[in-house]
Amino acid sequence: MPYELRPVARVAGGRTEVADDGWGEVRATLELAPEVPGDALAGLEDFSHVEVVALADRASDVPPAPWRRRPRGNPAWPEVGVFAQRNKDRPNRLLVSVARIVRVAPRALVVEGLDLVEGTPVLDIKPVYAWLGPRGALRAPRWSDELGAAYY
Amino acid sequence: MPYELRPVARVAGGRTEVADDGWGEVRATLELAPEVPGDALAGLEDFSHVEVVALADRASDVPPAPWRRRPRGNPAWPEVGVFAQRNKDRPNRLLVSVARIVRVAPRALVVEGLDLVEGTPVLDIKPVYAWLGPRGALRAPRWSDELGAAYY
Repeated sequence: MPYELRPVARVAGGRTEVADDGWGEVRATLELAPEVPGDALAGLEDFSHVEVVALADRASDVPPAPWRRRPRGNPAWPEVGVFAQRNKDRPNRLLVSVARIVRVAPRALVVEGLDLVEGTPVLDIKPVYAWLGPRGALRAPRWSDELGAAYY
Repeated sequence: MPYELRPVARVAGGRTEVADDGWGEVRATLELAPEVPGDALAGLEDFSHVEVVALADRASDVPPAPWRRRPRGNPAWPEVGVFAQRNKDRPNRLLVSVARIVRVAPRALVVEGLDLVEGTPVLDIKPVYAWLGPRGALRAPRWSDELGAAYY
């Protein structure tokens, strides 16, 4: 059974082309959709970071994209399932990104370090609570560290 | 323009009723949807944690739920917009949860600390890379710390 979702905001500014690396300094604005009241952002000025759920509308769904591949097609890295990588070509094409809040504006949120290109539909915005995140020791394969070396 | 999304897995086991607190020790299983090959999980055994995107199918969308409210209806906490809280009643009813991987099973993933009730449709599973998460100093209001005190 499919579910229907609608954009609550859209990415304005920032990069216009998808890129692998160098997202840390990029600034962009999340502009609320016309039917969303500006009130929905009230209180975000007390948080430093947001988590943004977006639809990678330029990416490929899976299928037709493969269920298993080498991240970035890099032959030095292992072939892993789509749920063991954060590749944008994935089932439902959902992205989850954490960004720093620069400023809460009327009907808009200016952020830094958001790895989404201009025009991307945003499905949700959530504050980052201090106590969220992985609990206990974190373990990840070396390829994922190598992939992240120049990301931000 | 609405987007159609479909479940890639479903939560089995764990809690059957929604609760505010005490999620840390709860174990549950993400069972892949029939059309998803088990191969999609390959490589997750090298990660300690996953990020799960799910649809809160028992929650209320916004609207009809309000764009602004006190978290948990607690009179001691301020009224804030829906994008400044992680309340499950929200536009698109999307949840993002981080859980510890207990075991990768055939066509299933056993996790601990996932704050989703049995039967919840899962829209995506992503590995937690070590370098993800908020960059720079984290700031959050006191009410969000109080809310989290007994969450896990």
